[in-house]
Parts: sequence; structure tokens; C-alpha cells
Amino acid sequence: MGWASKYSEKGLTSIIVPMDTIIAVDIGGTHIRAASYAPDNIEPIKQKKIATRATEPGGLERLTRVIEDVWPSGDSVAAIGLGSPGPLDPHTGYLLAPPNNPEWHNFPLAPSVEERFDVKTFLDNDANLAGLAEYRYGAGKGHHYVLYITVSTGIGGGVIIEDRLLQGHHGLAAELGHIIVDPNGPPCSCGYNGHLESFSSGPAIVKYVLGELESGARSVLKREDNLSARDVANAAQQGDALAIQAYHRAGEYLGIGVASLLHAFDPSIVIFGGGVSQVGSLLFDPFDVSLKRHVFHPRYLEGLVITRAELGDDAGLLGARALAEMKLSF
Amino acid sequence: MGWASKYSEKGLTSIIVPMDTIIAVDIGGTHIRAASYAPDNIEPIKQKKIATRATEPGGLERLTRVIEDVWPSGDSVAAIGLGSPGPLDPHTGYLLAPPNNPEWHNFPLAPSVEERFDVKTFLDNDANLAGLAEYRYGAGKGHHYVLYITVSTGIGGGVIIEDRLLQGHHGLAAELGHIIVDPNGPPCSCGYNGHLESFSSGPAIVKYVLGELESGARSVLKREDNLSARDVANAAQQGDALAIQAYHRAGEYLGIGVASLLHAFDPSIVIFGGGVSQVGSLLFDPFDVSLKRHVFHPRYLEGLVITRAELGDDAGLLGARALAEMKLSF
Repeated sequence: MGWASKYSEKGLTSIIVPMDTIIAVDIGGTHIRAASYAPDNIEPIKQKKIATRATEPGGLERLTRVIEDVWPSGDSVAAIGLGSPGPLDPHTGYLLAPPNNPEWHNFPLAPSVEERFDVKTFLDNDANLAGLAEYRYGAGKGHHYVLYITVSTGIGGGVIIEDRLLQGHHGLAAELGHIIVDPNGPPCSCGYNGHLESFSSGPAIVKYVLGELESGARSVLKREDNLSARDVANAAQQGDALAIQAYHRAGEYLGIGVASLLHAFDPSIVIFGGGVSQVGSLLFDPFDVSLKRHVFHPRYLEGLVITRAELGDDAGLLGARALAEMKLSF
Repeated sequence: MGWASKYSEKGLTSIIVPMDTIIAVDIGGTHIRAASYAPDNIEPIKQKKIATRATEPGGLERLTRVIEDVWPSGDSVAAIGLGSPGPLDPHTGYLLAPPNNPEWHNFPLAPSVEERFDVKTFLDNDANLAGLAEYRYGAGKGHHYVLYITVSTGIGGGVIIEDRLLQGHHGLAAELGHIIVDPNGPPCSCGYNGHLESFSSGPAIVKYVLGELESGARSVLKREDNLSARDVANAAQQGDALAIQAYHRAGEYLGIGVASLLHAFDPSIVIFGGGVSQVGSLLFDPFDVSLKRHVFHPRYLEGLVITRAELGDDAGLLGARALAEMKLSF
């Protein structure tokens, strides 16, 4: 394996860029995407997308095949990076309890791939890797302290500190959806009360609307089982007061949570990803007001960039690639 | 300057230990302490303690003199480390607005010392440095992810991630007393509501007791201006229900705050310093119950050490020394 040592233009760390190919795999709920990348080129050499079929046996075989499909002809492979929904242990490469996939409970995913291909293999969760990707290739480029928050069905996070991904002792750091913003708040998907996710995720917005409708609030929205955060956003954009209030509340608590996270991490940029964050000012106007009201020292906001993620669907793949590069370099 | 490069026994980082003396200064509210240290020796070569006299002019001259007093004869000095109460900017070495010291508002403390002695000089706040000291020389030795929390008149923090002190983009990270644990909570010393400090610091405990007494609660405690958290602890140890409840509430919210911090940082050890933490089970029994009740995944608690700080009054000096060593090595 050949190496080119170069100093990062960012000055804080020296990053060693492998001279060989990196293979990245993004294991999503519906699709597995894989790609091979040459050094210093963001465009894949080869890429492939297959259905995940998580509930069906043979997951490791499907994963193996898609890696073979993107294997570069002739070149050697420096490392393989894998991204998957958590919970998982990035230090051992084990999946702990992926939803809807009994075959992969407590499963040595990275070690299995490493053994099969005899190539160093690294694993981390999708939110951490999306944050790492935005830092390396997207909205966070040039920043050394990055707070990435995805607001979607759940709320997840990825934190970069001094150009390194925060993983934590058990590999469970940056579970930013599960910080407690009000101990008397509603139950979270995890079963505990008052988490940021229980106020500001898509399902939390829907649940608030349904609760208010049940209490007799007036709205164009109806108490339907398949009501979505998107439906609520559409109603809000048509001026529906309850729908506006639902996003207002979500943004207000998001501001409280992010204020605490600024006090803890003091980043230079906050990047929002995930479907719910795409509604724009409906969520982020009340978020901005709340954030400014709850940050306890104005210095945290000096030069602070608050922005949207740039990489879209590619974040998972590029994050898995960045993980492999990061792990090879120290 | 000579250097000995050695690998840390901890495996994650290589620490370069300077062959020359380090001078450390701990600028406290009442005393300035200074000491010079030989490499690999925790005992000072020389040390000196003088009164701070923060409200009197001439602070820089007093600081200069105490550094000269501990300057080692014959040896060269590799670096000077300074610790001070915040807010301050560790990246520029400026004090921003130290309490009770108008002379040092927006003052280039580290640059002034560096210019005077022609020796690299580094500055950080007392809580960060106490955390760094416990990690290097105290209760946190051997850990790579450390959460240090001082519970006293205020609540401060110091966080070590992968063997590095978390400073943050503006140098304001780890302000752990100012994470929001209940947005409807009482006002904090900083003026904002519902911070951890507004529930669990010494003054917060006293304020809760005074409020309950005013509402007619029965207690051996009286509504006195000089009531202290120590008085409340003494009453609790004699079985006073209100005093016990005051510490119970402080411990409960401390558990909520630390649960969020585990979800954010995922450390392997939590170290408590500060006067209020010395009351023991009165605070930490309810804390333990609350922490276990609020951590959303049992894996965070696997092997987690929760313990008391070991270095006492020496933490500030040893932290300033460790800061200088850390900054010299990368």
C-alpha cells in the first residue's frame, strides 16, 4: 500500500490520504448503496444500489456481493467504510440491535467484512457519518468544530471536534436527539420523557397536532392515522394556526436543545439535515428566536454559521468513505 | 530546548514530554499560586502563594513577580501555563470579564506574560484545568473520555475527549453548568432560566430552602441572609425533612443533566469536584437514582466510573502545568 502524507490546509491536523481505493457502503432501511473512490476524487469509480431486504436472511451475502460489484479492477483497496443505523459499536464493528433485522442483532458486521476481503473495515452510525461527510465534503468544509443535527423521524447527531469525529467511550456519543430538554415533556420513541426528539421530530409534530385536535382545537387537519409532518407543513403554509403552532413549538424546543449543545461543544457551525429541516422558515424562524433567547453568552453566536446540509442522499456514502480515511490516518 | 518523545501508556496518543521546566500559575479569587515543575515529577521544584488582591491595580506586576520567584535557577523554561476563572479565550490568551477585576477586562494576559519572559504561555479556565489535571494526575488517570463537573458556588465543567481537552471554537466549550435541564426552572446566576447551576449549585440549594421557608415549610433552618449550603447539609444530616428535600432536588436535577451529558459525550468516567460534592450520599444517592432513571440506553453505564476528584487545591496548578505540556505536544 502506498501513502501520500500531506498537511491539511486547515492547519490543525495532518491527514494522510491513502493512495489506494476506498470502498464505502451505506446500509439504509430500504437500500444498500456502495461505491469505490479513488484518492482525492469525490466522484465514485463504480457504484451500485440494491434493496436492503432487512427482514430476509442472507444480509451478509448481499452486502458482500455489492462490495464485490464496486471493487475496482486492478487496484488494491485500502479500507472499507460501513454506515448503518444504530445502535452499534464503532470500536468493535458490531451491530447491537438494528430495527427490523433480527439476523443482525449483536452481529460482528465490520469484522465479518474485514475477514471476507482481508481489508481493514470500519463501521459507524448513519447520523455520525452524515455529520462527518458534511464536515469533509459539504456544508462544514473548513470548520474544525461541527455540530450536525438531522431532524427526521428521529433526531440524530454527529459532532466533529478539532477535526475528529466524536465517537465516545462506548461509541454512543452525539445521541443529540436524546438530550433532555424538559423532564416533564412527552415520551420519546426510546421510551424516556422530554427528549429533544419527543418535541421536534416529525412524529412529535404530528403527535402534538393529534393531541390538540383531540382537545378540540380547530384546524383544517383531521385526526387521521396517516397524518404526516409534511401534511402539517402544508396546512401551516396555508395559514392553519394549529399547524403553525406545531412547528413553532418544535422550533422553540430545537432552539433550547441547540443552546445547551452550544454551551457543551461550542462549535463554529450547526448543520441541519433530515426531511423535517427542509420545511425552512416554518421551523427555523422560531428556532432562531429561541436559540438567541437561550444562549447565555453572546460570544457563542459570534461568527456561528447555521445552515442546511448539502450532500443529500450522498451523505451516507461519503461519510463511510471519510470514516475509512480518518481511521487509516491515526 | 531538548525533547524526549515517548508513547503514552494509554495507547491513543503520543505525548511529547518537554525536557525543560514548566511553570504553572493558578490565579484564584483570593490567592495566586505558582510552581515550577521538572519533567515527570509531580512535586514542584519551587512554589509560592500570594494574595490575589484582584480589586487593586498592579495585577500583572504581582503575577510577574510570583513567576520570577518560582523560576528555576540554571534551567530553561519550556512553557508557562496559566489558569484563571472565566470567561476567557484560551485561543488568544485574553481574559474577557473576570469578576471583581476591572483592570483585567479584555486583557491580553497570556500574551503579556509571554512577552515579558519570552516563553510560550497558555491560558484556560479553572474548571477546564481542574478536569485536565484529574485526567492527567488524579481520579481520571488511564481514561480517554473524561467528564469533570465541579459543583460549588457555580457549576463548571471540563471535558477530555480522546485524551484532548475540549476547548471549543470560541474557547467556551464545557460550560456544563449552563445546559438547560428545565426551561421553566429558576433563574441562574447568569440570568437565564433552568440551567443545571440554577438547580444544583450551593446557592441554588440555599435559595430553594429560603423559598420553601417563605411558603411556610417547617424546618430547623431559619430565613437568614447568611444561610449556606453547608448549613443545609448539617440540618439534613440531623434529619431535617426540608434540608433533605433540598439536596434530593439538587441531586435529581444533577442526574438529569449528567444523563444528557452522557448522551452527548459518552465518557468512561464522571468526576465530581467542588465543595457541594463533598456532602456525599445526601446529594449522590438521589443523583444515582435519577441518573439511572434518565439514561436512555444501559450501555452508557457499562463500566462507567462515577467518582470524586482527588487533587483538591492542587488541581488548578497541576491543570495549568498539564495545559502547557498538552499545548507543547501538538
